[in-house]
Amino acid sequence: MVPGFLANGMCCGIKEDGRKDLSLIFSTEKATAAGVFTKNAFKAAPVLLDMERIKRGEGQAIIVNSGIANAATGEEGLQDARRISAATSSRLKIPDELVYVASTGVIGHRVPVDKIERAMPELVSDLKETGIVEAEEAIMTTDKVPKIALSKALIDGKEITVCGLAKGAGMIEPRMATMLSFILTDALIERETLDKVFRSAVDASFNAVTVDGCMSTNDTALILANGKAGGDPVRSAGNLRIFKSMLQNVLSELSYLMVKDGEGATKVIEFCVEEAKSAAEARKIAYAVANSNLVKTAFYGGDPNWGRIIAAVGTVNEHIPVDAVKVSFDQVPIFENGHGVMGYESELKEIMASPRIRVRIQMGMGKKEFRLLSSDLSHEYVTINAHYHT
Amino acid sequence: MVPGFLANGMCCGIKEDGRKDLSLIFSTEKATAAGVFTKNAFKAAPVLLDMERIKRGEGQAIIVNSGIANAATGEEGLQDARRISAATSSRLKIPDELVYVASTGVIGHRVPVDKIERAMPELVSDLKETGIVEAEEAIMTTDKVPKIALSKALIDGKEITVCGLAKGAGMIEPRMATMLSFILTDALIERETLDKVFRSAVDASFNAVTVDGCMSTNDTALILANGKAGGDPVRSAGNLRIFKSMLQNVLSELSYLMVKDGEGATKVIEFCVEEAKSAAEARKIAYAVANSNLVKTAFYGGDPNWGRIIAAVGTVNEHIPVDAVKVSFDQVPIFENGHGVMGYESELKEIMASPRIRVRIQMGMGKKEFRLLSSDLSHEYVTINAHYHT
Repeated sequence: MVPGFLANGMCCGIKEDGRKDLSLIFSTEKATAAGVFTKNAFKAAPVLLDMERIKRGEGQAIIVNSGIANAATGEEGLQDARRISAATSSRLKIPDELVYVASTGVIGHRVPVDKIERAMPELVSDLKETGIVEAEEAIMTTDKVPKIALSKALIDGKEITVCGLAKGAGMIEPRMATMLSFILTDALIERETLDKVFRSAVDASFNAVTVDGCMSTNDTALILANGKAGGDPVRSAGNLRIFKSMLQNVLSELSYLMVKDGEGATKVIEFCVEEAKSAAEARKIAYAVANSNLVKTAFYGGDPNWGRIIAAVGTVNEHIPVDAVKVSFDQVPIFENGHGVMGYESELKEIMASPRIRVRIQMGMGKKEFRLLSSDLSHEYVTINAHYHT
Repeated sequence: MVPGFLANGMCCGIKEDGRKDLSLIFSTEKATAAGVFTKNAFKAAPVLLDMERIKRGEGQAIIVNSGIANAATGEEGLQDARRISAATSSRLKIPDELVYVASTGVIGHRVPVDKIERAMPELVSDLKETGIVEAEEAIMTTDKVPKIALSKALIDGKEITVCGLAKGAGMIEPRMATMLSFILTDALIERETLDKVFRSAVDASFNAVTVDGCMSTNDTALILANGKAGGDPVRSAGNLRIFKSMLQNVLSELSYLMVKDGEGATKVIEFCVEEAKSAAEARKIAYAVANSNLVKTAFYGGDPNWGRIIAAVGTVNEHIPVDAVKVSFDQVPIFENGHGVMGYESELKEIMASPRIRVRIQMGMGKKEFRLLSSDLSHEYVTINAHYHT
């Protein structure tokens, strides 16, 4: 799928039901690397290891297990992550510092490293170009659909590929914990440029979705750029624009897939907060509305309940000019001049029945905006999360 | 129930199902008054009116309708609130500025003032000392149980009564919107003292509960002190201590009743965050944990899922010393030294089955604390809020 990248996914026995639970992604050449990690104080062991290694800006392999998160496991957990890395690097015959480790699953349990060590020979010997599909399958937990996105474009006459895979049903993928995403590209690009472009793309995609407002202990997004496409490094403004746009498309597609596959989600809602005084306030308002359980349950019930939306907006800042605020669903106005707007009942009924709804909130205070993808709150969400026992 | 206070509640036809929807509380003498109101930018019309009037620190009557919130109704809504006040003051033959108006119910609809005006003669003529029970009944919306609390004590040899009534199933009482509470006392107390004592009691009670993390457009807590008990004003340190403690008991009891009656709630959970660096951070951590849908659904499912609790704690501050944090359920330790604590499975099973659970989170960072009452997130919560249509 991406020149110079091999991958594989298999079952090594961490998940009790026999589903795949171990993935390996390998670049035949040493690649430039960048990464973004959870801001949670309780960072999982593999996150701590990767944060140390990403400082070098290089990488060649990513080893991932699902089923157990290796979070809240103390010093032993860190040793386990190091053993997983060592088993991978020795089999691949690459320096240990070029291996990144990721885990996703229940918090507070040790990873059975022995099982991973025993599976390593088979995992490595079956590495293949098409293996990304199996690798994706093996990082899924409560995900219902695999999440792979691909973008190809010509830069300076050379075909460049950007491929991303992800797992997660939200900021936190709650039953098993974690959003993980790995982006592979054959573009040749310098590490500072890659880091900058990647962070900005993550901010506008993974950092602009919410399923349940929670932040995981394991969130990890990594990009490896192995330069296989050759040519000059992507550096000029024009070429960077193309590369950024490819990256943005791939991450946006993965984000959309995550929200759509959010636990119990029946709808994807896009909250666009516009005309805010600052970008920070726009962001705060978008999250206040999207994470309101009253707003989420109203969307689940198909109710265009603007009262709950403005009540959530009003919690952010007591001094919002309420008469200037406008709310619309898709193109239909629903709140203006401090009042509800009447006369669009049939249009609204149709909009609420669709699986993707755009809610526009114009604050009338400035020029800043923020766009957030979110899902609704259903009975199934409660069932999934109440009936899982540690 | 409280000397010098009369009350009544009746059906005037705002609620379509014939339940009571109009309450009046009347003090035979002009009373000292204090009030605390929602911080929401979208304040309901009666809140705006009351905020203006409370500046005088006086009051004699509270007129309340349930069924319609008179929120997001613009200038017309404010005129409606004034008409309701005028109908009340003219019938009671008291100055209009001594009347407080409160509304609770759906957002965005006009209150049918004519119905209230037509009901006023009957509402006033049936005012009685025991009428607080009817008044409470008429302010209920999705409440399943009435919420009245009473405290009596001797201050300087005189018996003092503090009686509180409240409605609401959370910070926002979502289907119909609003927490409302009215406290009546025959204590003689000066307005600055009353204001100070009342605010502090509200902070430790109504401002320390959450059902769904949302803030209403109508939240109102009012106290009237009519001085009927006579004697000297409550002023000395010793007498103030007794009065504060009575007030605190009444507000705490009402808060507990609200959380217990929270929409769909099956359990009351008390989150005690201790050893925090600042009171503000303790508060932030308590809310982050209590409002986490993952934590709430775990309690609903009876799962002592400490992983979700520490993940929520960790979102507040990336620099929390994770090895110093301790979590316990009632007296049973569950997380310490960065690890889960094993060996208490049967005790935990018993604790999780009880209707009231105390979760203690020790941060190991300082000496500040905050205590928050919260409820769980059940299928019934989703049903109530998804199936209500504006």
